[in-house]
This record gives sequence, C-alpha cells and structure tokens, in this order.
Amino acid sequence: MTAAPAPATGFVPANPDFAARVRDSFARQPFMDHIGARITALAPGFCEIALQSRRELTQQHGFVHGGVLASIADSAAGYAAFSLMPAEATVLTVEYKLNLLRPGDGEAMIARGRVVKPGRTLFVVQADVFARKGGKEEQVLASLQTLMRLDGRTDDAAGAPGRGR
Amino acid sequence: MTAAPAPATGFVPANPDFAARVRDSFARQPFMDHIGARITALAPGFCEIALQSRRELTQQHGFVHGGVLASIADSAAGYAAFSLMPAEATVLTVEYKLNLLRPGDGEAMIARGRVVKPGRTLFVVQADVFARKGGKEEQVLASLQTLMRLDGRTDDAAGAPGRGR
Amino acid sequence: MTAAPAPATGFVPANPDFAARVRDSFARQPFMDHIGARITALAPGFCEIALQSRRELTQQHGFVHGGVLASIADSAAGYAAFSLMPAEATVLTVEYKLNLLRPGDGEAMIARGRVVKPGRTLFVVQADVFARKGGKEEQVLASLQTLMRLDGRTDDAAGAPGRGR
Amino acid sequence: MTAAPAPATGFVPANPDFAARVRDSFARQPFMDHIGARITALAPGFCEIALQSRRELTQQHGFVHGGVLASIADSAAGYAAFSLMPAEATVLTVEYKLNLLRPGDGEAMIARGRVVKPGRTLFVVQADVFARKGGKEEQVLASLQTLMRLDGRTDDAAGAPGRGR
Repeated sequence: MTAAPAPATGFVPANPDFAARVRDSFARQPFMDHIGARITALAPGFCEIALQSRRELTQQHGFVHGGVLASIADSAAGYAAFSLMPAEATVLTVEYKLNLLRPGDGEAMIARGRVVKPGRTLFVVQADVFARKGGKEEQVLASLQTLMRLDGRTDDAAGAPGRGR
Repeated sequence: MTAAPAPATGFVPANPDFAARVRDSFARQPFMDHIGARITALAPGFCEIALQSRRELTQQHGFVHGGVLASIADSAAGYAAFSLMPAEATVLTVEYKLNLLRPGDGEAMIARGRVVKPGRTLFVVQADVFARKGGKEEQVLASLQTLMRLDGRTDDAAGAPGRGR
Repeated sequence: MTAAPAPATGFVPANPDFAARVRDSFARQPFMDHIGARITALAPGFCEIALQSRRELTQQHGFVHGGVLASIADSAAGYAAFSLMPAEATVLTVEYKLNLLRPGDGEAMIARGRVVKPGRTLFVVQADVFARKGGKEEQVLASLQTLMRLDGRTDDAAGAPGRGR
Repeated sequence: MTAAPAPATGFVPANPDFAARVRDSFARQPFMDHIGARITALAPGFCEIALQSRRELTQQHGFVHGGVLASIADSAAGYAAFSLMPAEATVLTVEYKLNLLRPGDGEAMIARGRVVKPGRTLFVVQADVFARKGGKEEQVLASLQTLMRLDGRTDDAAGAPGRGR
C-alpha cells in the first residue's frame, strides 16, 4: 500500500509537530505491529490506518475478524483525535459503537478516522473501515467514538493513565 | 488459566450438541489463536474467553490494547448467542458498543458474554471483560451487542454470509 | 419552518408511493404530535424531521431535552429506512447510539436521517440533529442506528410486531 | 405507582444531601413533566423513573414511543450519576447506546439507572426500562451510557454548560 495524500480537514493543530508525535506513539504500539497495521495518511483531525489481509487475522468464515477491523478503527479514531491535542497531553478511548456492514473480504483493510467535534476534554470521532478488493473499495464498518484528552502526561508507559478517568 | 465452572443460565439450547459446535467454530478462527485466546467456560447463552497478556498485545502505555479487549468481548458475545442457535444456523455480529472502564492491566484478560434477549432473528448480548491481577479481577470493559442468526448456512467458509444481511 | 428541498440520494425506492406511506405512518404517531415534530423533507433513504423549541421540551438548564433530540433522530432514521422498504413491510428500531455534541440551544431542532447501508433485513442509518439559532445551524447530536424490516405486516396497530424480533 | 424501596448500592455519596439535590433538579425539567415521568426510587448511584402509558406517548403501532423510553432511560442514568457527585457539580449526558428489546406495551414504563463505574470526570451507567402489564414486568430497553461531571457549576440555567465539553 502506498500512502494516500492527506485530506484537507480545516482543523488547526495545537501542536505543529503533531505528525511526528502521532507516528512516534503509533510505533510504540506492539499490537499494531502484531496485526501488520500502519499509518498510511495523516492530517489534523484525520488518520488512516491500513493492513494487508492474511490468514492469522481471519474468523471462521475466512474473512478478516471483526476484532481486527475494530482495532484499526479504534486506532484511526484515537490518532485523529490525538493529532489535535497539545504536546503535553495523551489520549484515551472512552467508548465506541460500531456496525459491521459487510464481511472483511479483500486484500487490504483501510480505517479512516475523522474528528466530528473536538472539545476541551472529549473528542467525538467517526471512523469507517473499507475493504479493498481488485482496486475497488467497499465500506465494511461504520463507527462513532468518544476519546478523552488527559493533560500533563507523556504518551508512553511513564504517562500511563492508571485507573482513574 | 484453568477452565471455570459453567454458570447455570436458565436457557435451553435448541441444539443439544451446542458445546461441540461452539468449540469447533472457535477452533476455526485463526485470529483467536493469533492473540492466544481460548474458551474457558461455556453454557447455554453464556461464553467465557480468556487470554494471557503479553507484549505483542499491548498499546503505547504498556496495557493490553483496546482492540484485543474488543476482540475477545466480540467473540464471547458471538458464541454466547451461537450456543442458543439451531444446528443449521450461523451467527453474525451486527453491531456493538463498548466502554473502556480501566486500562487492560493484568496477567490475563477474561471476557464473559451473556445473552440478555434471544430473538427469532436478533440476539442482544451483554459482554464484560475483566483484568486478573494478583488473583483479583477488575472490570475493564462493558459492552452491549447485537448478533444475527442466519439460517440454512454452515458455520465455515462454505456457509459464509457474503454481502447481504 | 418551510420544507427543505429533498436531497438526491441515489437510492431507488422499492415502493414508488413511499412518500405517502411515510407521511401516513408519521401522522399516526401521537408522540410526534405531542412534541410538535413534523417531516420537513423526504427522499429515498433520507428523512428530515423538525420541531420548534418550547418550554415543555426543555431540561434543567433550559435547553431542549436530550430525550427530545433522541426522539426526532430515532424517527428520522426510522423513516429514512422505511422509505426504501416495500409496501408490505413495516420498520422496527433495533438499536442506536448517539453522542450529544452541544446543548440543544436554538429556535428549532432539525433531525436528518440518511441510510448508510440498506440490507435484506437490517438497515444502518446515520442521523444527525442540528440546532438552528439566528439563521445558523450547529450540529448537536450524532447517531448511528440499526433498523429492521419486518415483512408481511401493515404499519399500524393491526400489524404491530408483538414481542418477537 | 407507589415508590419502590431504594436498593442498597454500596456507593457512598459525596453529597449527603444528594436526594434533595436530585429531586430539585428533576423538578426543573419541564420535559419530564410533559411526558408525566417522576422519580419513584433513589439511592446513591441508582435512580428509578416511571411514567403511566397514555395515547400522547405512543408511536404508529400503539406502543409507547422509543423516544419516550430513551428519555426516561437517559434521565434515570443521569440522576444515578448525579447522585454521586459533589454539591458544586452538574451532570451532562455524553452519549449512550440502547437496544429496544420488545415493544413498550403496558400500563407503566419504569427506567432504572445503575452506576457501573464512577470516575473523576466520567461515569458509566447501565439503564434498563421495563414495561409493567397486569402486575408483571418485562424488560423493553437495555442501555449503556456515559455521563460527565462538570465542576464549579450550578445545576440550573445559570450553570448551563454552554458549548464546550
């Protein structure tokens, strides 16, 4: 997969260095590596994450598992929100709801998260996942997510949020 | 992890051989194997799925990734519903909503799905995930899920539901 | 409020007489009348429902109650789906998830439902609500909904779905 | 409807005067009065809200409208959370997801909200609605909700949260 051009989103990032910060955080997520996911496009309030389908990621019908689709939708939404946060904040997924629209059938799965409403504390993000098959894309997942900004924390194990939120 | 005793649920399974059918379907999910998940308890309308925490499953703060928690919650809900279905049906996840309550911090993550309302076509299931740490369990995820029964299909690639639902 | 022009949606209705059928069903909903809601635009796979703000519809902060916003979002989603169904079917709300983005502050509240994915049995619909204040609109609610088609039933008390779904 | 005894919840309220504060806030919600809802039981982290079914609250099949069920579920969840907050805070509904399990068929509809996880900022609450018919109760709605605590605000128009959250 080649990186897609980043869309114009109209958001102004609080941290001009947001792209490096998002990519650095993503690189510290072993699970994203375990499923072969990577960031393929990034803009203020937008993040695209894609992976190649392979047997280890499938369910009993031979399609990509819903949990894999949820995982890249969750990360795309999280980094779409994180891209708008100041340098001294980290991001937490509060909750999400997703609909599985079609089976995850294709060579690649592509998640796209877009901030709908940035807030002081909470960010509402829409994330969709598409299956790419023979050059065509079809939407396989729709989701609506709530993320939280936690201030005064580094985005690594040292800044881990612990049990309170 | 040792298998927990199956709780009494009050549901009467349509298929007396439901346990073998659930375990057979689970065994054909490569992704469950990829994350090290297995069924640790099963009863009509109830399924427990657990995994050992390990580095490949973590996010940037060092906790088990939300996508992993979602994956076992999704499967626990799916098999809780599937356990009540007749032998000639398969199950599809329609949608779910989950809240992440605390970080996935512990030696093991345990998902428990319980059918709230079985229907002719749709099953509503509650699935919770708990982190076990030093012998204590704390709830880390709460979810409410909708599953669909598809009749006249085998639960494998041959019976895959295709694009319509 | 004047009726807005119906947007072009690209969907072909199964029932050419869908508009009359939707309006007839809506007219038989006493609760929509109780809160002063009416259909202000309609197209295949799309429905807009609006109401004037008034004191009876508010919560303790003086804004339109979230339950009122949910009610018009639910109906807009339901009729967006219903508009694509054949004449001999009725529609049921299976579930929805909504985020309240801002307080319901304005002269009018306008819900717009758009079908994301029509299915054989299930319809996934996105419904948003906007507050209109001084000629400007701001989004106050985002939702993602699942509706079900029930065949062989009239859309009135005689065809009421009963307890199974 | 007679008031039910308040269940023991195990939560210790931050505000010993929580019951008066909840009832006072509820009394300032014109929409709850418009649909005839009232608080029938209250305890720390728990709130029950009930209404009598009547024609103005119904949909086209003659059952209580889903929007009415959502409204009392939303309020029951909100006040369950609010009951645990300090005196100088107000509560906002962030989001919720609900499943409609059966039609709203009965003489009365009873919503019960229970806090699942109180947090520093966010509260996760489960709210169910039951239809009472001929002395029997059946669950008609299940929901999972996220509420937010806003500090330093009065719970009335003067303390209204405005557009940021």
